[in-house]
Amino acid sequence: MTTFADRLADAVLSKGSSLVVGLDPNLERMPRVLVEAARSEADDEREQAAHAIQRYQERVLELVAPYAAAVKPQIAYYEQWGPAGIRAYEQACDRARELGLLVIGDIKRGDIGSTATAYAQAHLPRADAVTVNPYLGTDSLQPFLDRSSATGTGLFVLVRTSNPSAAELQDLTVGSDPVHERVAALVNRWGADRIGEHGYSDIGAVVGATRPEHLSRMRELLPQTWFLIPGVGAQGGRAADLVAAFDERGLGAVVNSSRGILYAYGDPETADWEASIATAARDLRDELRSAAQPATT
Amino acid sequence: MTTFADRLADAVLSKGSSLVVGLDPNLERMPRVLVEAARSEADDEREQAAHAIQRYQERVLELVAPYAAAVKPQIAYYEQWGPAGIRAYEQACDRARELGLLVIGDIKRGDIGSTATAYAQAHLPRADAVTVNPYLGTDSLQPFLDRSSATGTGLFVLVRTSNPSAAELQDLTVGSDPVHERVAALVNRWGADRIGEHGYSDIGAVVGATRPEHLSRMRELLPQTWFLIPGVGAQGGRAADLVAAFDERGLGAVVNSSRGILYAYGDPETADWEASIATAARDLRDELRSAAQPATT
Repeated sequence: MTTFADRLADAVLSKGSSLVVGLDPNLERMPRVLVEAARSEADDEREQAAHAIQRYQERVLELVAPYAAAVKPQIAYYEQWGPAGIRAYEQACDRARELGLLVIGDIKRGDIGSTATAYAQAHLPRADAVTVNPYLGTDSLQPFLDRSSATGTGLFVLVRTSNPSAAELQDLTVGSDPVHERVAALVNRWGADRIGEHGYSDIGAVVGATRPEHLSRMRELLPQTWFLIPGVGAQGGRAADLVAAFDERGLGAVVNSSRGILYAYGDPETADWEASIATAARDLRDELRSAAQPATT
Repeated sequence: MTTFADRLADAVLSKGSSLVVGLDPNLERMPRVLVEAARSEADDEREQAAHAIQRYQERVLELVAPYAAAVKPQIAYYEQWGPAGIRAYEQACDRARELGLLVIGDIKRGDIGSTATAYAQAHLPRADAVTVNPYLGTDSLQPFLDRSSATGTGLFVLVRTSNPSAAELQDLTVGSDPVHERVAALVNRWGADRIGEHGYSDIGAVVGATRPEHLSRMRELLPQTWFLIPGVGAQGGRAADLVAAFDERGLGAVVNSSRGILYAYGDPETADWEASIATAARDLRDELRSAAQPATT
């Protein structure tokens, strides 16, 4: 069984892409024609929403598959629609993997032992990796660590997020270090015995790109950790600021864009939305390639 | 619209109970007769699990309704079974409210703005309150604050949890204070304009009972905050250690027990499991009453 860290490296190398496309399905921004068509497919509002999402993500996955190493379905946008939404989330995971895309389930769960076991069983290995919240400490993540080890999957631990209020807790100073560097030390420990053939661990870190100095510091502290970098595009990060995250092979980081690709067409009435999505994914892949391999491009 | 904080006070006073029964449905511990019966109700394993959970929780809710102020479905145990499990979670919420129980959805979500909006829409007001994780800071909770304000519902923010590893991040020292006291200060701020007629805010705090000194310190820092106290019973806390959490009216805290009530009968083959659950709920209610109103009992 190839571990998650190695599968991710293989995907990045074979596709020449560090791009992760975030799936944040929002009915108000999706092509109107799909949302309207779904109305006739069910009576219940939540079922209608799930049908619209299914139609949309099916096309999105096909369109971005040539350009992305992975997709990151954000489960909140599915959970919003109840059981039908969760069915659509599972379909996104399953279909993405059929298309050769890795799946990072953006679930940000974190809870005590027995509850964490239930979450880990719910989400791994349907996704190749999931995001987790470290606030409850090691014993809350142990069931995820165990499950990911047993199933060849991975985790991305929230270390320093990209939202403005992240500083309130994550940047509090403990001794001479910010809290998020203490979390980084835990990530190192959790991943120490999970290093793959490409030199990276199955236990990754979510590190925001809105402040480039965080990235280089994190790379220093976490030399064998895959970074999942959100915040490029809609949240204000720029691809050129990401150079410090990559090693000389262009490995070590994958970069998420959600709305910048999903809704690249802008107006939900636009007829050529498919071309806009494909172009946006291809362009960001190329831009990230320049950041990941600055010498060769 | 009566606010959550006042509805909780009314429930505690009218029932003479500070008890919250946690719903952690675990097929291996549930009465075998129910699990077996559910096998014939569906072909799919997850549908079977959901049917068993529905049968079980329907009886549990009826049995504990006289003794509990609220129930706390833990969504992980439902999410584990996919769409069918989420349907059972929703049924737990809806049925509990029909029976006059308040519902605290134990979801521990926490994510950035637009995603938090989707989570808040998913879970409020189906539950009367939900638990949330503060690691991402104020902007991650703002959509929950807005939604709870608009719908008369509440939040319980994780401040100091009861698991052994909680200390790793929550007790790190910032200046002279542990991180969890900084979170407490945020909880005070988030709830400042949400104080109800009984003197408590809609924005509560999860505070573990495994270390009694945390409770009295938290009460000092958070005089107008409802505490949701887990960790009594299976996790090692004792009801007598909780006195500091309550005010002279017996308000200010509700105490969760999950496995100690749900599986009070022990052996899943036991025939009189219903009586064991009712007795365990009544006994813990009485024990909590002694802690909440030590002078009058």
